[in-house]
Amino acid sequence: MSFNPDYETIGTAFIGHYYQKFDVGDPTQRAQGLADLYDPENSYMTFEGMQVRGRDSILQKFSSLTFRQIQRGITKTDAQPLYDGSILISVLGQLKTDEDPVQSYNQLFVLKPNAGSYFIANEIFRLVLHNH
Amino acid sequence: MSFNPDYETIGTAFIGHYYQKFDVGDPTQRAQGLADLYDPENSYMTFEGMQVRGRDSILQKFSSLTFRQIQRGITKTDAQPLYDGSILISVLGQLKTDEDPVQSYNQLFVLKPNAGSYFIANEIFRLVLHNH
Repeated sequence: MSFNPDYETIGTAFIGHYYQKFDVGDPTQRAQGLADLYDPENSYMTFEGMQVRGRDSILQKFSSLTFRQIQRGITKTDAQPLYDGSILISVLGQLKTDEDPVQSYNQLFVLKPNAGSYFIANEIFRLVLHNH
Repeated sequence: MSFNPDYETIGTAFIGHYYQKFDVGDPTQRAQGLADLYDPENSYMTFEGMQVRGRDSILQKFSSLTFRQIQRGITKTDAQPLYDGSILISVLGQLKTDEDPVQSYNQLFVLKPNAGSYFIANEIFRLVLHNH
């Protein structure tokens, strides 16, 4: 057991990096920018209830999102250290794609250390919608 | 590395158990009902940005919540397995305490296996509010 004492700093830096890569309008560029963040086999990602596993399946899902422009505001970021040295991050934010209305969302990540860096071992995304 | 294949079932059962213990009006009874779920030293809990660590501090925080009645609706529950055998759970729901308006919230848990059962290693709670 070894809690990472720098979980806040690493969590905040990661969120900035991730959204910089995610928030591009070109789906191919988005997938390329995010590719290094996932494990080829063992990363889990659940997007609005649809779960996929492994880098290729995750990037394919992100490439299928059809927005051309995205604006994002982060309201709160919470981070905690995990027993195994990983870092848990939860984001509450708002986003607006193209001409759609602003939507509230929650996104969480588990960053796992590997070879001096981190990869996304787990990720869950949900829009805050209670009526569907 | 060993992913727990029963993460969905365990996650759903845990959420039912947790809220049954949490959603009581008497603060002492609430703390007693939840006590077994936390590690004395190493459980982390962040409640609306306030982070505490260890069973006593967590229960003290929960005991300080002053509602007498709480109604809750769970909209979505997402679960994933973690590398070390833990289970990640994210809940999107709505709650109403006493005469306050209905509020949207997100709550997440990392359940860690221990001696044939699980304890809450990590927990984060946030109301979905963007204006404070």
